[in-house]
Formats: sequence, structure tokens, C-alpha cells
Amino acid sequence: MCLSQCIVICVLCLSYRHAATVVSGRELARQIHKEVQSDTAKLVAQGNRPHLSVILVGDDHASHTYMRNKARAASLLGMSSSTIFRPSSVSQEEMLELIDKFNRDRSISGLLVQLPLPEHFSERAICNAVAPEKDVDGFHIVNIGKLCLDQRCMVPATAAAVWEIIRRTGIETVGKNVLVVGHSKNVGMPIAMLLHSDRNHERPGGDATVVMAHRCTPLPRLKELASLADIVIAAAGVPHLITADILKEGAAVIDVGINRLQDPVTGKLRLVGDVDFEAVKEKAGFISPVPGGVGPMAVAMVMKNTVTAAKNAPTY
Amino acid sequence: MCLSQCIVICVLCLSYRHAATVVSGRELARQIHKEVQSDTAKLVAQGNRPHLSVILVGDDHASHTYMRNKARAASLLGMSSSTIFRPSSVSQEEMLELIDKFNRDRSISGLLVQLPLPEHFSERAICNAVAPEKDVDGFHIVNIGKLCLDQRCMVPATAAAVWEIIRRTGIETVGKNVLVVGHSKNVGMPIAMLLHSDRNHERPGGDATVVMAHRCTPLPRLKELASLADIVIAAAGVPHLITADILKEGAAVIDVGINRLQDPVTGKLRLVGDVDFEAVKEKAGFISPVPGGVGPMAVAMVMKNTVTAAKNAPTY
Repeated sequence: MCLSQCIVICVLCLSYRHAATVVSGRELARQIHKEVQSDTAKLVAQGNRPHLSVILVGDDHASHTYMRNKARAASLLGMSSSTIFRPSSVSQEEMLELIDKFNRDRSISGLLVQLPLPEHFSERAICNAVAPEKDVDGFHIVNIGKLCLDQRCMVPATAAAVWEIIRRTGIETVGKNVLVVGHSKNVGMPIAMLLHSDRNHERPGGDATVVMAHRCTPLPRLKELASLADIVIAAAGVPHLITADILKEGAAVIDVGINRLQDPVTGKLRLVGDVDFEAVKEKAGFISPVPGGVGPMAVAMVMKNTVTAAKNAPTY
Repeated sequence: MCLSQCIVICVLCLSYRHAATVVSGRELARQIHKEVQSDTAKLVAQGNRPHLSVILVGDDHASHTYMRNKARAASLLGMSSSTIFRPSSVSQEEMLELIDKFNRDRSISGLLVQLPLPEHFSERAICNAVAPEKDVDGFHIVNIGKLCLDQRCMVPATAAAVWEIIRRTGIETVGKNVLVVGHSKNVGMPIAMLLHSDRNHERPGGDATVVMAHRCTPLPRLKELASLADIVIAAAGVPHLITADILKEGAAVIDVGINRLQDPVTGKLRLVGDVDFEAVKEKAGFISPVPGGVGPMAVAMVMKNTVTAAKNAPTY
């Protein structure tokens, strides 16, 4: 084949370049739901129906929505669940007593306290009060320690969601360059831990080179690092932070941002991620949308953690 | 001043460029020793002399050297110490019993089990057996969890050594680009945690953009990332991995490598780091040598952890 033919083919390839594969978090969540449903059925047959308890403090609108999503998913998958409401005036001592009671209740497999909590709480004290083996949010200090040491543990649901999206979409990580934007303890940090660590350890990692960027990363530097990244995980909580111009052609882009913006015309709130979806879709290889990407997967991972907790519970 | 004058001055600056400041770990360790000595004297005056216990299994030559360095440092600083030797045939159960006894012994402030242990041990089980408040190596799962959540804790000594070298040398980290090469759980991972995290948290971090590279990072990618780095921390255990050609002019280079190479002429073993010291010295802004860099600082940080453990111990 002569050079001119090659050039023609390349030009054709470029002009026929498809937009990114939009990763459906809803579809992937359905896959996980099927697996969890099957595991739940087996446990039910053994007389061990998984049960998720959620403690909800105050009347934060988003928290109520998340709680309902979890209760609905649990019910669909054959688990039982309960939600315990407390007013925002509840004291930390009362909460610790409640958690202690639930820790000792053998009928409860998984227990989570919906965050954020009112200001008079130490969220860390509350997270550490939940028994690690029931901690389906993966926020207990021992689960964080195990996560960072590549041991089997309850992985925080959003980080687990990102991991499963990457795995189930067949995105390669070994030796690849991953940019994680945002270093929160519940999302960015555990994602970086999962992706940079050894694929042969007890809890396998991605063996990727991982960049941890955040609000102190100067914008020109962020752009430079984004242009090198095979995978970009946006978890900064900044709408439209990740734009098409800073990305490498064909990169995989996972959007973990949940930002509520008011539509200037209708005045209604709408959910957007950290990624400029429409433009990035034309340049990336894979992209997860908001809503319908990481969100439904995170709920599915809480369900998976709950069934794991039920499996691991002592049967006496 | 005209352009030609500027050019002349720039050329002069370039030609008179000094080699890197060689950071003396021994000198910095002396600073820390003074502080620890002063704290120790206060505790002794209160009848609470810090005591470090080291458990040493088998006859690994390097382990015996490390142990002697720690015992010598403890003695110099006014602490008492003890080393308990066990043959490599000792069982895990016997070790766990010994650790339990030491945990309950109020005269012991800090306790460490020198790693590596013989193959029949679970090092994780041993590290988790040491009471977190006496764990001067910072390897207990709860100390790792706290480290990763930016809480006050016993920071692993080598990571703490790198942190103190950076701080006491006045190397800026906020918004800077840091490349950590090597992702071991005792060294690379905790260094990345310290440097990328928030400077306003309970345990202040460096607020740097941190790249975690390791043996799966392709060499061309490592070079690309090194050329962007303001600070390079080499903790891969690969002699001469970091060469001058891949670095940015004026970068700070901290060498954590400890490699024993046989001299082809004399046949003697000599200690080298991961950095091509002589060449890098001419290009970097700061460089820590091996030996005499991180090594003495790591011993000093074990001493600092021991005095902290003594301060925090309940007085009943």
C-alpha cells in the first residue's frame, strides 16, 4: 500500500471518528443488581435475608432522595430495609447509642448513616461507631485503613462504582495514566487508592500511574496533566471543569460530580457533573453521563456491600 | 537596562549556577534530636522516662544495624530502650503473646517489631497486634486509616522523615507538582498521602498535586512526569533510576532508596539510593544524599514518635 493510500485511509478514519461510547451507569447497575439479586436469593434460602438499615438525621432534601433510592433498590433485589428518622436536634450521644444497638442486632446486615450530618456532630465519630463489618458505606477508619493497604474491605460506594464502571466497560488501567481531580476522603482519595495499587494484591488495584489533583492545582497544570491522561476521573464538584480542549483524544472520562444548577430560563434546578458533557463526548473514547452514570452505580454498590455483609455475618 | 544587558546578566547567571543544596539528613536529625531530648528531659522530670522496645526476629544483618541505630539514638536522647531477640523459628502465636504483654506493660512507651519477618509470619497480623498508641512505626491499620484521613496519628517514620526534610529545608509544596516513584505501603503510599492532602486539616498535608508512579509506569511516561515535577521523591529501590536528563532544572530531589551494590573493584558492598547523585546534584535545586539523607531522619522520627507516645500515655 503506498503512502497516498495510507493517508486517504487515515483521513477517512478521522472523518468517520465516532463520538465517545456513553457508559450507561443504569445499564451497568442492572448487571450488578442481577448478581446481587441472585446472591440475595441464595441467602434467603438459607434463612439469612440481607437487611439494610439507614439512619437519616434532619430533612436535607438530597439525603431523603438518596435514602429512598437505596430503600427502593433493596426492595427490588429481595432485601429488607428500614429507615430510622431522627430530627436534626438529636444529640451525638443518642446517635451513638442507636448505632450501638443496631451493631448488636443480628437481624441487621448493613448499616449506614446518611451524610452530611448537622454541624454539632463529629461525622468521624459517627462513621467509626458503625461496626466495620456492617459499614456498607466503607467509611469506618478500619475499612479506610484496609482499603489503603489493599486488603479486602467495604470499599466506599462511589469509589467502588468508578472501579466497576472501568472494569465492566473494559477500560485498561495497567500502566495507564489516570488523572483524579478532587481529593475528598469519601471519593477522590479512595479512587486514587484503588487505581494506583497492585493488581495482584488481596484487593486488586489498577496498577495505573495516578495523579491526584485538586483545588490547589493551578489550572494550567491541570490542563497539562489532563492532556497526558488516558483516564480522567472528575470528582471536584465544579461544573464544567473538564472541557474538551484539555483532554487527549479517546480518553475515558468518568464524571463523579453532582452539582445542582439553576436553569436561567425555567428557574428549575438541574443536575450537572464536572464535565462539559456535550463537547467532551465528541473527543473522548468513553464518557459517563450525569445523571445516569456513577449515581445509579453507587446505589448498586451499597447493595453489593450489604449482601457481602450478610454473607460474612456470623451464623452462630 | 537594554536587552543586550539583560542577556549578558542571564548568561552570567546561567554560567554561575550553583550545584544543588545537599540536604544533610544528619544535620536535620540533630535538630530533631535536640527537640526530642528537651521533651524527654521534661517527661523524665515528671517521672515518665520514654522507653522504646524493639523486637528483633532472626539474624538479618540490616535489621540488626537498624536496631542498633535506634537503641543508640534512644540512649543519646535520654530515653531507655530494650531489644528483645527471638530466633527465626519463633511462632506467630509466641510473637502475638509477647506483643500483648508489652502492650499491657505501662513502662513501655513505644514498641516496634523490626521488619521484615520470616516468611511464616503475617506481617500485617503482627503490625495490627501492636497497640496503636505505642505503634511508633505507624504501621497499625488504625494509624494507616488516620493517616489517610488526615488525622493526628503515628506517621510511618520514613514518610515522616521525607515530610520533615521538605518542611525544614523550606521547600514549598502548596500547588506544586510532586512525583513519588514507588508505591510501597510503608513508604511511597504514606508520602503521597502526606503531600497531596489539605494543609488545614488536623494533620496538615502539603496541598501538592501528587503523581504516584511505580514499576508499571512506562519509562517514557516516568520521564515525562519527572520533567514536570518540582519535587521528586524516589522510593522505588532501583539504583540510578532518577537521572539528571529527566529532571526539571532546580527540582528538589529526595532519595529514599536503600540499595546495596557490590563494588566491582573492591568487592565490598556500598549503599546507593535511587538517584544518580553526582549528575543530579548539578541540575537539582536540593538533593538528599544516600547515605546521610533520609536514613538518619527516619531514625530521628522513630524517636519523635516514641516521645509522642510517652506524652500521650495515660498517667493513671
